[in-house]
This record gives sequence, structure tokens and C-alpha cells, in this order.
Amino acid sequence: MSAAVTSGLIPEMLREYGDVTRAALNDYLPTRTPRRHLYDLLADYPDRGGKMMRPSLCIATARAFGAQLDDALRSAAAIELLHNALLIHDDIEDDSEERRGKPTLHMLHGVPLAINAGDMLTLMSLRPLMENRMKIGPRISLRILEETERVALESAEGQAMELGWRRDNVNDLSESDYLVMVLKKTCWFGTIYPSRVGAMIGTRDSIDLDRFVKFGFFLGAAFQIQDDLLNLFGDHKQYGKELMGDLLEGKRTLITIRLLELCTEEQRRYIVRFLGKEREDKTQEELTTIFSWIEAYACGEWARQIAQGLVGAAEHAFSLSLEKLPPSRDKEFLRGLNTWIIEQI
Amino acid sequence: MSAAVTSGLIPEMLREYGDVTRAALNDYLPTRTPRRHLYDLLADYPDRGGKMMRPSLCIATARAFGAQLDDALRSAAAIELLHNALLIHDDIEDDSEERRGKPTLHMLHGVPLAINAGDMLTLMSLRPLMENRMKIGPRISLRILEETERVALESAEGQAMELGWRRDNVNDLSESDYLVMVLKKTCWFGTIYPSRVGAMIGTRDSIDLDRFVKFGFFLGAAFQIQDDLLNLFGDHKQYGKELMGDLLEGKRTLITIRLLELCTEEQRRYIVRFLGKEREDKTQEELTTIFSWIEAYACGEWARQIAQGLVGAAEHAFSLSLEKLPPSRDKEFLRGLNTWIIEQI
Repeated sequence: MSAAVTSGLIPEMLREYGDVTRAALNDYLPTRTPRRHLYDLLADYPDRGGKMMRPSLCIATARAFGAQLDDALRSAAAIELLHNALLIHDDIEDDSEERRGKPTLHMLHGVPLAINAGDMLTLMSLRPLMENRMKIGPRISLRILEETERVALESAEGQAMELGWRRDNVNDLSESDYLVMVLKKTCWFGTIYPSRVGAMIGTRDSIDLDRFVKFGFFLGAAFQIQDDLLNLFGDHKQYGKELMGDLLEGKRTLITIRLLELCTEEQRRYIVRFLGKEREDKTQEELTTIFSWIEAYACGEWARQIAQGLVGAAEHAFSLSLEKLPPSRDKEFLRGLNTWIIEQI
Repeated sequence: MSAAVTSGLIPEMLREYGDVTRAALNDYLPTRTPRRHLYDLLADYPDRGGKMMRPSLCIATARAFGAQLDDALRSAAAIELLHNALLIHDDIEDDSEERRGKPTLHMLHGVPLAINAGDMLTLMSLRPLMENRMKIGPRISLRILEETERVALESAEGQAMELGWRRDNVNDLSESDYLVMVLKKTCWFGTIYPSRVGAMIGTRDSIDLDRFVKFGFFLGAAFQIQDDLLNLFGDHKQYGKELMGDLLEGKRTLITIRLLELCTEEQRRYIVRFLGKEREDKTQEELTTIFSWIEAYACGEWARQIAQGLVGAAEHAFSLSLEKLPPSRDKEFLRGLNTWIIEQI
């Protein structure tokens, strides 16, 4: 299949699998009291849409390995529910103001109710995984639950690394520190876990799942770097979050790491002081200054090149571990995700 | 067995079952990196001790129904881990400053890292429940996981009710509003769930578990009212949290509900204004004034009487549903919890 056909296939299948997942997921969101302080909050982020990459990746992997859509649907719904739950807490932890084009949940309802809603959604996401038993049996169901506990651990480790760097204003970070953090924080939950769960379902847990760690890492890291780039250079309406939010939140990205490597001593002092400030003390002038240095040192271009290298590595990992699958739309979806991601940058 | 013997038995068994649970639980708390931003935080609340009532109730119920200690140990550890996880988030939501005699986790490490630690501990608490499979089989293990998802839902509903009342400064609450909130927020996780899980293990999930809803509600509500009373009238060192913290946090308790029923219109305006203020805007003078009205209207005495009534109801529920069990220390522990709780008030 040509690249052009593939690149049309990705949005088409994201829409298709996104729609069936959303329908399945809504069955797990009750509409009962207390609505205004709890159930309305749970439904808010899922209602806002989202790319639905995680559930689509799970379904496509399961089907590429021979499963039926319905075998993977509950797991896909659980993954999307858990993703939304973690977003609620991430937004508080990151002091983020916007999510999918609207104010974050804690901006709308306050931190206490938002934490509580996130906790509830986290534990509710387990229900479809337990109901899996009726469809795919208790053995695979428990294996998926174990995998879920593991991914939660990886994510929390990655999040702790990033939050720790920000709280303590750590600035002696290398590219590889960043990539380890992204492996844990983004890739495990974003790509590795959905494809491993899909493969568990498609093969009845009969293949070595390690192959998905590499494939998912390359894919997920490219995706995260793309997100970091969009945050700086994107279009606000398309991006759905505030531009330069990462700089305001003091996030460490490949771009700031590169900037700190290349800049002068004086610039470095300025940047370190800026990154260590509270969000509300950061000025527009500082933002403009730092952004001009990012452009002067071509840090965005450098990050873009690394992302492209990761996409190449993902293609290689795909050809090693997934090329042998019989031809299918789902296989083409998995293959095409690489190039689709880089086209978004 | 006499009441005197029973009342010595409770602390003895809380110590005994608390110690074995703590040893089991520590196996699930890893000591690896990132330590300073994650794993040290996870271990902090469990290290501070606690009454260990929930795991002890689970073990005692399981044994009273004929199980071995080891059959219930993983579940007891999971319950205590999940309890500690929820405490981390509750303390943020309630803006609490002290927990078990030390600053709360978010006071020590900031809100972002504390939220993240709570999320991790929540999902880690599922691991012993999945490992249950090896000891008590997949069927009961999955039933306990389902029960865990249900209790999380009840707790979050109760927490949403209470947080909503505080955020919106709701003051037209009745005694029964309070008891519904306590059933969900305190009793389900504090007493109903541990005893249901214990009975599932002890009977191989062969009896109707509804009996534990009543018994656990009466017991748990008495316990919560005792906690509300200790917060106002207790000894700081023994209590481990700041006295009058509930008033500072604007919590709705049986005591404030009673006060609002009995006070004059003018006092009511004063109290409502006080409850609606931010914590830092509340003064010592206001605290002293409101405390004097609580004493003048004997609101504490009234709450104490309701707690005593609940203990009587719990005794009745015990005689209906648990009296038929063969004699054992564990049965006497379950029976004695009632009177032990009221003696603490």
C-alpha cells in the first residue's frame, strides 16, 4: 500500500475505532447522583474528544493478530478511561489551564473535586477489564490487569521524574535522561501497553511481548517530541492547549535541554532563573526572549530531526516484528502510524 | 467472654494482625529509583503506623468463617495499601495539615508529587489482590477485585458529597444526609468492605454478603462520629491530627448540623459565614466562639448519644448474622469492636 493511501487510512481508522470505543466507554459512565460534584466531571474529558490513538492501537494490534473487534473492545474502553483519569491528575500536577480546547477540570471545579473524580475514573476503568472475563476468559483477563498495574507503575515513575526535575529546578539533564523519562511517562501507557494488550488478546497471550517495548518506545517518543514541538510552534486551535504552556509550566523537553547545552553562560542563568519561577511570576517578555533563543539555536529543528530518527527506528522495529503478519488494514494502520505522526509535526 | 476481657482483646488483636499485615505490605513497597520523588513518599504513611482496623477486620472475619490467616493476608495488605493511598488524596482535598502526628504528605513534598504518589499507591494496592490467585484461586480473586472497584465508587461518591457541601457552603443538611454521606465515605471502605472480603475468603464466596452492609454501617458510622468528636474534644497527641481541624476545613459533621438546628438566626449567620471562608481567613476568635456554642447546645453530647445508639444497633446486627459462628477469638474480636469503639470516645 502506498504512503498516500496509508496516510488517509490513519485518520479514517482512528475515527472508526475511536467511535466504537467511545460508544463502549459511555456504557461505563453512570448518570446518577451526585452528578454535579462527581458524575458530570467523569464524563467531561471523554466528551471532549481526543485522538483515540491508544484504544485504536489496542484494537488494531488485536485484529492484526487475528482477534475479533469485540474481543478487544472492553480493553480499548478501559485504556481510554484510564487515560482520561490520568489526564485529570496530570493537569493538576502540571498546573495546566487548558485541555482539548477548554479549561482543565480543576480550573472548572476546583482541585479537591477534580482529584476525587480522577480517583473514581481510575478505579472505574478496571471494570471493563474485569468484565473481559466473560469474553476472553479469566486467564487473559487477569494478565491484562497485571499489565495495567505495571503500566501504572511505569507512568508514575516517569511523572515523578519530571515533576521532581521541575520542583527542584534540575537543569543538568541530558538527552538520554529525557528519553528515559519519556519511555516511562509517555511510551508505556501511550503505545507499549495498548499494543501489548492487543497482542495478548490476539494471540491468547502466546507470544513474547518484548518486541512491543522497542516499537512502542520509538513510536511514543516521536509522538511526545511532536507534542513538545506543537506546544511551541503549533496552531492554538488545532493543538487545544495553550501555546508555550510547557515553558510556563517549567517542563523539561528536548528543546530546553538542547537550548541549555548551546546557550551562553549569561543566557543559561536567565533560563534557569525563568524555569525555577512560579508560573504566575513568569512574564511575556521572558517567554519572547527564550523563544527567540530557541529559534536562534535551531533547537526545534534539532528535536524534529531526532523525532524523524525515531520514526525510522520504529519502521525498522515494525519490519523485524510485525512484517510477518498476514496482510490487513490493521497491519497497515500499525505500519502507517509512524509516518502519520511525523506528518503532524 | 466478659466485656473486660473483650476490651483487652481488641488492642491485642489489632497489634497482632496489624503486625503481620505490615510485614506483608512492606513486600509490596519497592525501594528503587526514583526514591526521593516517589518511593520514599509511598512508604511514608504506612511507616507512620495507624490503628490497622481495616486489615484486622478482614483477617478476623475470614478466620471467624474458617479460613487460615495466610488466605486473607494479601487482601489485608491490599486494603491497608489502598487506605493509605486514599489518605494521601483526602489530605489534599481536605487541605489537612497533619496526619498521624506529622505534616501531611503534600505539606512535605508539594501537591503534584503527593497526587502522583497516591495514584501509584492506589494501583499498586491491586497487586496483592491479583497475587491472591495463587492462594485462593482466580474466581474469588476476581470477585474481590470487583468488590474493590465497587468500594472505590462508593467512597468517591461520599467524598464528592462532602467536598461539594463544603465548596458550595451547603448548610441545610439533616442528620440523614450526614449518615448517607458517612455510609459511602467511611463505612463502605472502613468496615463493610473489609468484612465482606473476609467473608468471601472464609466462605469461598458462598453466603449472602448483605448482612455486612448493616453491621458495617452501624459500626463505621459510630467510628466516624467518634472521630468527629475526637477532632473537637480529643487529646492532640493521641489524636495525631490538629484539633478543630474539621472546623478549619469546613467539614460538615453531626455536631455542626446539630448546632445549625439549635442556634439563633444571628448565630447561624455567623457560623455560615465562618464555614464558607477559606481556611486561612478563619480566626482563633471565631473558632473559640463557635466551640463555646457547641458546648452551650450540648452538640457533642447529642452526637455521642447517636454513636451509642449505633453501637447498640451494631450489636443487634451482630447477634442476627454472626452469633451462629463457632466460638473463636476472631468472633469475639468482631463482637467486641462495638464496645471498644465507644470506649474510645
